[in-house]
Amino acid sequence: MPRYFVEEYNISNLIIDNDNFHHLKTVNRVKIGEEVELFFNDVTYKVKITKINKDNLIFEIIDQFYYDTEFNFKVTIMQGYPKGDKLEEIIKHSTELGVYEIIPVIMDRTIVKIDDSKKQAKINRLNTIAKEAAKQSRRNYIPKINDIKKITEIDSNLYNVKIFAYEAECTNSDKKFLNIINSIKENDNVIIAIGPEGGFSNEEAKYLIDKGFIPVSLGKRILRTETAGLYCLSAIGAIKE
Amino acid sequence: MPRYFVEEYNISNLIIDNDNFHHLKTVNRVKIGEEVELFFNDVTYKVKITKINKDNLIFEIIDQFYYDTEFNFKVTIMQGYPKGDKLEEIIKHSTELGVYEIIPVIMDRTIVKIDDSKKQAKINRLNTIAKEAAKQSRRNYIPKINDIKKITEIDSNLYNVKIFAYEAECTNSDKKFLNIINSIKENDNVIIAIGPEGGFSNEEAKYLIDKGFIPVSLGKRILRTETAGLYCLSAIGAIKE
Repeated sequence: MPRYFVEEYNISNLIIDNDNFHHLKTVNRVKIGEEVELFFNDVTYKVKITKINKDNLIFEIIDQFYYDTEFNFKVTIMQGYPKGDKLEEIIKHSTELGVYEIIPVIMDRTIVKIDDSKKQAKINRLNTIAKEAAKQSRRNYIPKINDIKKITEIDSNLYNVKIFAYEAECTNSDKKFLNIINSIKENDNVIIAIGPEGGFSNEEAKYLIDKGFIPVSLGKRILRTETAGLYCLSAIGAIKE
Repeated sequence: MPRYFVEEYNISNLIIDNDNFHHLKTVNRVKIGEEVELFFNDVTYKVKITKINKDNLIFEIIDQFYYDTEFNFKVTIMQGYPKGDKLEEIIKHSTELGVYEIIPVIMDRTIVKIDDSKKQAKINRLNTIAKEAAKQSRRNYIPKINDIKKITEIDSNLYNVKIFAYEAECTNSDKKFLNIINSIKENDNVIIAIGPEGGFSNEEAKYLIDKGFIPVSLGKRILRTETAGLYCLSAIGAIKE
């Protein structure tokens, strides 16, 4: 069943308009009598289309229910800007896996050059990808893709659990990562920093440690940058949900 | 440093030949004096190239060491054959995350039609992808991509821990999956069955339960078929390593 994020006035006025209207009409080719799911403020409304106007759809509410799809804490991924379209894949997977926010960061070993004039369009497109992925995985919350930043622009005071994946730690077989996951509490703000291809530079590692980030090993094998975040989110999900 | 899986005679005769020779010569354009890593029987050999012949390379061993990159149990993914090139992505990610074997299975909701005459070429290509991914993530073991099978062709007696990801279980918030991971012991043979897009049919779910597979929920959100296996492997890695 198609599912749309709507606003308060859509529910109170029983109306679907703007982008959702166009998507339902042109992509789903919705007809009178068909059912659609609308989502607002943690509640899913099952509605039936009763009228199709030129610029909007009218519906009646058949049922409403509350699905809890979110962690009871927030996980932000600080992602070293990767090559190619990997960031899109990271956003799709991370959204399914419950991420709260992704901050793309230009790091020392980032290869991609992004023209300042194109940054905003890029971020808008990435936010659209997050929105579509949130729909597909029935998330209550659409993860935010933050503006492209430098590592020094991250306000580390916003987070109370701070880790970074550091390859130099990979021979280390302690259970630090597992212990940190186990210690996450309700309402915690977790940030996980992942380097781009090639990982963090020594200077970045020093900077992060200085800001209170704990270096952790993500298992015995070398993970690609596009896999590291998924590994963390999956582990957090399996252990904390 | 380039890294190659070799056989016993390569190490005992200090020679690199065949595919590895061609790859080193044409792709890496290796020169005399350069160092390469060779891998055989759980040991990594750091070697220096001393001579380049027409059909082979001669080397001397500089160092050798043992990296343990494997789980002390085996995890097989029985993967419902997905659309497009998703299987390639699944193989890359799963190899990084420690999978032992992947069995692509044509299931009731598999959409792709694979011509019998093309199956072997397809499997050969997928095994090459696994080999490259194993190299990149420095695995000691190259995961095997099995032939494309039907669900009834899987010998469930080979496995002593059997689970399948079943969406109907997703409202269920018990800790079954976590408990099963925690219970995995050394030398266990684990199999995780993942449906294609749309999941398992009711008949398949019944069949799997009949064969001793336990239905588990993979968290609160709907995961795509290409994410479900990674979620399981990541969780197993984080908890058991």
